Amino acid sequence: MAAPPQSPGATVPVQLIALPDFPQVFEGDNVAKLIVEASIAAGLILQNGDIIVLAHKIISKAEGRLVNLDEVLPGERAYEVANLTGKDPKLIELILRESSRISRVREGLIIVRHRLGFTSANAGIDRSNVPQDTIGEIVVLIPENPDASAARLREEIKQSLDIDLAVVIADSHGRPFRLGTVGVAIGVAGMPALWNRRGEHDLYGYELQHTEVGTADEVASAASLLMGQAAEGTPVVLIRGLKLPSAEGQASDLVRPNEIDLYQ
Amino acid sequence: MAAPPQSPGATVPVQLIALPDFPQVFEGDNVAKLIVEASIAAGLILQNGDIIVLAHKIISKAEGRLVNLDEVLPGERAYEVANLTGKDPKLIELILRESSRISRVREGLIIVRHRLGFTSANAGIDRSNVPQDTIGEIVVLIPENPDASAARLREEIKQSLDIDLAVVIADSHGRPFRLGTVGVAIGVAGMPALWNRRGEHDLYGYELQHTEVGTADEVASAASLLMGQAAEGTPVVLIRGLKLPSAEGQASDLVRPNEIDLYQ
Repeated sequence: MAAPPQSPGATVPVQLIALPDFPQVFEGDNVAKLIVEASIAAGLILQNGDIIVLAHKIISKAEGRLVNLDEVLPGERAYEVANLTGKDPKLIELILRESSRISRVREGLIIVRHRLGFTSANAGIDRSNVPQDTIGEIVVLIPENPDASAARLREEIKQSLDIDLAVVIADSHGRPFRLGTVGVAIGVAGMPALWNRRGEHDLYGYELQHTEVGTADEVASAASLLMGQAAEGTPVVLIRGLKLPSAEGQASDLVRPNEIDLYQ
Repeated sequence: MAAPPQSPGATVPVQLIALPDFPQVFEGDNVAKLIVEASIAAGLILQNGDIIVLAHKIISKAEGRLVNLDEVLPGERAYEVANLTGKDPKLIELILRESSRISRVREGLIIVRHRLGFTSANAGIDRSNVPQDTIGEIVVLIPENPDASAARLREEIKQSLDIDLAVVIADSHGRPFRLGTVGVAIGVAGMPALWNRRGEHDLYGYELQHTEVGTADEVASAASLLMGQAAEGTPVVLIRGLKLPSAEGQASDLVRPNEIDLYQ
């Protein structure tokens, strides 16, 4: 088949842009304001249809979701699980408080169903990129309600710039079957989280049978490629030019209900 | 903290470009040649460091991995599993031939460990975007050895254009815990599949403990956002400007070994 002539616009790229020089975030910071300032400083003009993807940790920090492990009093169950994992009972106590159920426990590993429904190691509690205290170890929890945080951030940017963009709050999860963590969405506003494409047809008119796409997770994974996990300090990525259906969802749409999860 | 002045180049975006008007692929087609032609037709000049992500189906078609179900003779085990799932015994027979182990079976669902190590529904066998025969239903298997296919494609483009790029062959997989399929890498050449960042340090000098990133899966997910799953006909996505370590891996690196997979 001869290649058709170039159709102008057909190759307009989707752009992924890590906001450079994003400042450290502290409790009480206005993250919407920091994003607007960082985008202006970078010469970027935020637009309708942009997607802002944020490492969840900066939301957690702004919301004060930091805990000094020295101030945690482990219960009996925490000591039991700490024995099984070899982890600090204080950390385990926090993990259990954040969780609705333990999924798997092994030496060095605890995988739980978070009270928000996500299943991941350590209930998303992490120590990295947090300034440590001289008294006790500081850990950061995932935001109290990341969907609400995403919606609030979206609204604040709308108020500030009069533009309608989407917000995705991302975390990195390990997975059954496959090695390596990938970016996933734990908070979503202004775009679909789960894109139900059932009923659409393929190139030959055959109806798609099982095409429900984890779109917000794919967005989080794409942004994760630019975020770095360590010292790069690029916790905010702008995605521009991605065409998505206008439907709006939230990250909780991505949680597989217990009754259809064969791998609890 | 005052925003620093714009550093030129810091906001150079990573670009995701769906190759427009990519032709239908048939058995024996030279996919490298089709990619070079489609990129030229789109006014794109492929460059060192580009990543080409392909829907696995075009590789499967080029390699002739199509099967007419009418020519499949189901064995006893296939009839048993067909009974459990309500699926066509001929399709089940093919799935079992492609698999090393059944992971879960339910009404309407069969999840297997593919002989290549990936765990997914139907061993990756799919009917969509395949021209159907008047005699029997045509299905497409995943490529015989997608890592080898990716390496060959990379080599052919190198021979043709004298550039060194990376190739990722992508599929869409459902997942435990989370709804929706996401793009994953089943063939990789010219870039790391799994990026081991252990030993790196965070912003505060704390050594990262568990940072092994499924980089090629994140690349596949990013590309999947542009591919569409249905009639859009954009099975090839170019990713440009992504900085990755020079290490090379293959998709088999992403397979979690049995002994550390707690969710078999």
